[in-house]
Amino acid sequence: MTPPAVRLPGVQRVALLDVNETLSDMTVLRAAFERVGARPELLDTWFAATLRDGMALTASGTYADFAGVARGVLRTLLDDEAVDGVLAGFQELPVHADVEPGLRRLHEAGVRLVTLTNGSSAIPKGLLERAGLSDLIERYLDVGAVGHWKPHPAPYRYACEELGVSPDEAVLIAVHPWDIHGAKRAGLRAAWLDRAGTPYPDVFEAPDLTATDLTALAAKLAA
Amino acid sequence: MTPPAVRLPGVQRVALLDVNETLSDMTVLRAAFERVGARPELLDTWFAATLRDGMALTASGTYADFAGVARGVLRTLLDDEAVDGVLAGFQELPVHADVEPGLRRLHEAGVRLVTLTNGSSAIPKGLLERAGLSDLIERYLDVGAVGHWKPHPAPYRYACEELGVSPDEAVLIAVHPWDIHGAKRAGLRAAWLDRAGTPYPDVFEAPDLTATDLTALAAKLAA
Repeated sequence: MTPPAVRLPGVQRVALLDVNETLSDMTVLRAAFERVGARPELLDTWFAATLRDGMALTASGTYADFAGVARGVLRTLLDDEAVDGVLAGFQELPVHADVEPGLRRLHEAGVRLVTLTNGSSAIPKGLLERAGLSDLIERYLDVGAVGHWKPHPAPYRYACEELGVSPDEAVLIAVHPWDIHGAKRAGLRAAWLDRAGTPYPDVFEAPDLTATDLTALAAKLAA
Repeated sequence: MTPPAVRLPGVQRVALLDVNETLSDMTVLRAAFERVGARPELLDTWFAATLRDGMALTASGTYADFAGVARGVLRTLLDDEAVDGVLAGFQELPVHADVEPGLRRLHEAGVRLVTLTNGSSAIPKGLLERAGLSDLIERYLDVGAVGHWKPHPAPYRYACEELGVSPDEAVLIAVHPWDIHGAKRAGLRAAWLDRAGTPYPDVFEAPDLTATDLTALAAKLAA
């Protein structure tokens, strides 16, 4: 089954870029877990549990920032010194290899590039500056302004309002099916990066477009 | 710091019992992962990601049942045959050793015992029947009736309405801080079972009462 092509109508073309795992390569954090004597795969449990707790706060009508939630989970897994080591590593992540060519292609095609993260905007700002790509990014938006984590509809709608576009003029780009689902529910288009080749969970709304990495996705979007 | 004692006012005394990990010992599922050639610790990632995805659905105003969400995550981690093996093991869990004496003590003290799970009521029903404890349980409630996973306020309030008590006449008992948080936000009392001795994340509302297991908790609640 070929997914339908995304059509970005009008002159305002905006790509909202998820950050953690979508742009950043979090797998290098496995080494940070190993350095403090933990299993490297604890990274996956920690990150899933961090999202779980942040979404739990949102589901119950409350909010805390990503750093506080991430630290709270990590303290249930590691001792305090190890917690600081892992969180320091989280500030120093690289981008995936496909991010630079993908973002350049989108930028050249006139697509406005804006990050939208459940974390602090400081994380993508640092990430893209280290990668030499910050000149491609128009804005760094995060969920702190609305006090709800994605996939609550508020962050997606806030981003569209900030950028002066209607939801159907924006496409969210993310590796996480729950983020695709939230964007679709909020009226945006959504493009799924499936770097790992995993099956898309059928409990979530399907993406408008799927690609194996950002370079391939950019080729489709910019076509 | 000693947490304040929980006072359950009036003649209606209800304990809402979370199920997965609170009553059931999920650690035996590690063997199910090993049997299909996976790392046993993948259990933790799978369960955290299942809750993440269920809460994501709730945060975005949508719903799918636990079995569908759990299967969707598992299919990203294992092949189809292995998925079936793990999900079969999930139907056969035992209770923790402290559950029988704890529930008996609460029942003898006149506390009404009701399960409230993000999964299907069939799971706690089978679990407590296998443990020979079903005569202690008044009702098996789940979130399907309201279409929101805990910690959204709706399931807690629905349970209180079904049982004819006001929220402050009910105490939620759970091992998960996010569940404590949701119950407190919905106006219930909440008792945290901390079998693992982990620090309580400060992003969540604190429990009214903490105990190392259900027997110790029952002794405090029934005092």
